Amino acid sequence: MTAVDFSAFVDELATLSGAAILPFFRSSLAASDKNEGGLFDPVTEADRASEVVMRKRIREVFPHHGIVGEEFGSENADAEFVWVLDPIDGTKAFISGLPLWGTLIGLSRNGSAAYGMMNQPFTKERFFGDGGKATLKSPQGERTLKTRSCASLKDATLSSTSMTMFNAKEAEAFRRVEAAARLTRFGYDCYAYCMVAAGFMDLVIEANLKPYDVVALIPIIEGAGGIMTTWDGKPATEGGQIIAAGDKLIHAEALALLNR
Amino acid sequence: MTAVDFSAFVDELATLSGAAILPFFRSSLAASDKNEGGLFDPVTEADRASEVVMRKRIREVFPHHGIVGEEFGSENADAEFVWVLDPIDGTKAFISGLPLWGTLIGLSRNGSAAYGMMNQPFTKERFFGDGGKATLKSPQGERTLKTRSCASLKDATLSSTSMTMFNAKEAEAFRRVEAAARLTRFGYDCYAYCMVAAGFMDLVIEANLKPYDVVALIPIIEGAGGIMTTWDGKPATEGGQIIAAGDKLIHAEALALLNR
Repeated sequence: MTAVDFSAFVDELATLSGAAILPFFRSSLAASDKNEGGLFDPVTEADRASEVVMRKRIREVFPHHGIVGEEFGSENADAEFVWVLDPIDGTKAFISGLPLWGTLIGLSRNGSAAYGMMNQPFTKERFFGDGGKATLKSPQGERTLKTRSCASLKDATLSSTSMTMFNAKEAEAFRRVEAAARLTRFGYDCYAYCMVAAGFMDLVIEANLKPYDVVALIPIIEGAGGIMTTWDGKPATEGGQIIAAGDKLIHAEALALLNR
Repeated sequence: MTAVDFSAFVDELATLSGAAILPFFRSSLAASDKNEGGLFDPVTEADRASEVVMRKRIREVFPHHGIVGEEFGSENADAEFVWVLDPIDGTKAFISGLPLWGTLIGLSRNGSAAYGMMNQPFTKERFFGDGGKATLKSPQGERTLKTRSCASLKDATLSSTSMTMFNAKEAEAFRRVEAAARLTRFGYDCYAYCMVAAGFMDLVIEANLKPYDVVALIPIIEGAGGIMTTWDGKPATEGGQIIAAGDKLIHAEALALLNR
């Protein structure tokens, strides 16, 4: 079974999870909940409802596959195929009403990221890839995703979700890259990686990520011609300090600055 | 003629400007252009095409009205009614492929902001208001916009497009509010003001704004029950240092911190 065979199934998971989440997005419940200790937290409810429905469907169709999810932990995680799920990547964007969160559906095979989708059900955009190819399907049509070439940081658009994800040393390293980049923008979670894949940004640098934050994005970035590793150039699958670049030249330039 | 009479005309301007801009958004031309000194700058082309089409229509229908636009300056700016236009607010989001830019169509009457729309043609969302009421029309339907109550900065979500818009003293002032807020997010341009109007964020604090950055947003924020002023509590219509809040209580609390 090749990774390609899974694309229809991932589409099905995206449809199910989107239907589970959307009733909670920009709901009046979401807007009125201001208590951290309150009984009802809409984003957590949406997160859980989405992961439950995906887990259920995976168990039905692929009972021997493993599952690693943000909300309900790991099961059978040493299987050949493991689904790596983040039902809502970008919960802070979600609660702020911004359509930049996404559902990350990743599939790893023998520990390598094999297939991934970022589903944004509000804008109806699905970014997906298998490491060899990456595609965006949306109401505007279907297009092949291709990173753009960018030979030097001085021409690069850099992005990161928030400085608050970095410790002091990481923040200093990030600032060195920022100082060399043409433009830096914060605030876009998984959407920023997809904009690198689409060739509209050049670089995402983040830290403190979990496997479910990255496994779905690696086959999209790599399928579009980019590269995604840890800050020390190792495979990104375990998360941690992550860099995604559209062009190998600025990946190398940024790594040198991060590790100086 | 009351402000209400203009709503159909503003809808027409939004349709015209959206049609002028969208061919340039995420176009391969936009992606491939990396030369600051290049002959073709897609976002500038889109900006100009959009403003041209709006100016033309305004002149046809309301030849005695004034127009102030980002790209083509002012004409008849001391008329009773003046249209205040920013064809693409958020050009950096635009070139980065992010659907958070918007076309700002404002109408001031005798110097006061009377009617405004933020049109996001990619997500097909139109946020508009007249100071007494504010509405969102989108493919998801039509909803009245209402800010949420937030009595204290410690419960507030704060937003600002980028720290780079502040000078050193302004950055220090902003950091005082940020330290008191529950959550701060960067990167959303005009979209952040609309999320305050919709009750998903509480506060936007920015600086160095122009009249065309704010006139369209004031009747939306105020129509939703919020407040938008300069950092010293004066009318926001001229731009400069701007604060928009969903609740008067945190507006006052933030002003005290900004001016300490």
